[in-house]
Amino acid sequence: MKSENQVWRLRSRPQGMLETSHFSLSKEPLAELPDGQVRVRTTYLSVDPTDRIWASEAEQYMPPVELGEVMRSAAIGVVEASRHPGFAPGDRVSGRWGWQSYYQGPPEPLRPVPPGVSPLAAMSVLSFIGATAYFGLLEVGQPKPGETVVVSAAAGAVGSLVGQIAKLHGCRVVGIAGTEDKCRYVVEEFGFDAAVCHREPDLAGALRKACPAGIDVNFENVGGRVLESCIANMNHFGRVAICGLISLYNQLGSTLPPGPANFQLVMMKRLRVQGFIVSDYYPRLMEAIGPLARWLKEGKLKFRTDVVDGLENAPAAVQRLFTGANIGKVLVKVADE
Amino acid sequence: MKSENQVWRLRSRPQGMLETSHFSLSKEPLAELPDGQVRVRTTYLSVDPTDRIWASEAEQYMPPVELGEVMRSAAIGVVEASRHPGFAPGDRVSGRWGWQSYYQGPPEPLRPVPPGVSPLAAMSVLSFIGATAYFGLLEVGQPKPGETVVVSAAAGAVGSLVGQIAKLHGCRVVGIAGTEDKCRYVVEEFGFDAAVCHREPDLAGALRKACPAGIDVNFENVGGRVLESCIANMNHFGRVAICGLISLYNQLGSTLPPGPANFQLVMMKRLRVQGFIVSDYYPRLMEAIGPLARWLKEGKLKFRTDVVDGLENAPAAVQRLFTGANIGKVLVKVADE
Repeated sequence: MKSENQVWRLRSRPQGMLETSHFSLSKEPLAELPDGQVRVRTTYLSVDPTDRIWASEAEQYMPPVELGEVMRSAAIGVVEASRHPGFAPGDRVSGRWGWQSYYQGPPEPLRPVPPGVSPLAAMSVLSFIGATAYFGLLEVGQPKPGETVVVSAAAGAVGSLVGQIAKLHGCRVVGIAGTEDKCRYVVEEFGFDAAVCHREPDLAGALRKACPAGIDVNFENVGGRVLESCIANMNHFGRVAICGLISLYNQLGSTLPPGPANFQLVMMKRLRVQGFIVSDYYPRLMEAIGPLARWLKEGKLKFRTDVVDGLENAPAAVQRLFTGANIGKVLVKVADE
Repeated sequence: MKSENQVWRLRSRPQGMLETSHFSLSKEPLAELPDGQVRVRTTYLSVDPTDRIWASEAEQYMPPVELGEVMRSAAIGVVEASRHPGFAPGDRVSGRWGWQSYYQGPPEPLRPVPPGVSPLAAMSVLSFIGATAYFGLLEVGQPKPGETVVVSAAAGAVGSLVGQIAKLHGCRVVGIAGTEDKCRYVVEEFGFDAAVCHREPDLAGALRKACPAGIDVNFENVGGRVLESCIANMNHFGRVAICGLISLYNQLGSTLPPGPANFQLVMMKRLRVQGFIVSDYYPRLMEAIGPLARWLKEGKLKFRTDVVDGLENAPAAVQRLFTGANIGKVLVKVADE
């Protein structure tokens, strides 16, 4: 049993891409475990586009990570020692203890991982990621069977699930992704009806071809030109569920570009453009996890992970999201189970 | 009885402001009234920001006015001759026969004006204008009593009603208008709690002061910098009802400016930004007109009109909306009743 914790703390606010230099990695002693507390060895960390938001001071949906604080993230791990009657060594738990090799503290922030759920599933499809896809699509997007749903960042953790859930819901699904390989992948592996590369010079025109009946629901993860091209193809009374705007995040802290340019179409077409954050749905989390787990078990839902090895590579793992290197959920593997 | 119709037809597509030169005014013979038809002498025409939309070829919520067509508008008038059993000379009717001194044709597009309703009320608070304010605020904006509602173009036909309806609904109401005079007017005459001039160099800051509890509902008629400043002050889970974006309309047909620049706040704050067009509510029109008529009768609702005399001045009347010359509903008086 180690008595040392490896901790990434936020050192400075990023301008542009999050770099390793914005963080400091320190070795910090772990105190003797006090009575009533639990020590958890981190196995995986979640790496998400919102990391770039939290690292900035821009106005956001929850307080930013303060300078000097442990970098925030969802995490999963194994109880290594417990002085609390509710936890025993070997228990698998998840929580939001951030970029560190150990969580040591009171048990309140910890949730048990249900038996039989792999850590990769627990950190993707059966986590807030799956719930984001589920509630964002079904409650914010409100697709009807037969409608056309367009999902951007379609090969990403959330997008790949959104497309599959929309298919299960009887929709025609078109993905937008950053490479031809990803486009092929979302069609062949995740069962999308079609996919369009966002590097297309005429993205709006390519979407028009891929969506002959127009777009009814745009599940938006990217923003900027991608959102703009979707709005151009939305049907009257369409819905735009703003899950993320990753194309803007590296500019948080600087001046944000204006956009979309065709905002007047929101009026002309009577669009509903609605932002959401999955944490608003946490009290109802099981409404999503239940069906997601069932679909997963029935083989109707696939997920993929992009695992980066080693806590020391956490900042580099974030960059994979912004360079578009990943397919599926980016995780950092910190230790074996 | 004249046998000549004065008709404004759209001659060319505007770039920038709608000018008289975009229209041609002609005298056209009126045929003998055929059996089954009605001849109506126009008394007032409605002049609305959407005239600029309809005159352009930009993507819009209904077909644009074609070149050579009579300029579209709502109108009210008096039956001068009838060869249809449902109408008699002297009947007051409204319809959408556009910029012409006479409507002659089948009676289907005509609706009777209820007895006791003045033509000015019938062309403003008790028309699609009142319904726009009513449905847009209550159904799209969904304000709760005690919430803060911000209305732009607050001294305009719709905005002045929105503010009053929001007050009747128990909200705190702040207007945005183009001059200090208008700001004073909406407070003193229409009972707004406060008003801010959109020419303020720091409009977002001025709104922050006027809305110490933030903005819950933004009823938006202007767009651009005004919308932007509202979004900056919206509370989490706020609603933006996009009724109009008049600041953009003179650029329809050219390249529209991108905006708002703070679109990422739609996500961060989980805003719902929703466009609407009153015609979508026409099947439910009486749900709005009923309460509006009652409030009017009870003295709880005021309306004001800005009447331009003479059909020949219709294009100039449109300009009043874009220069901000008007308070209340702009109408063109074509003839006495």
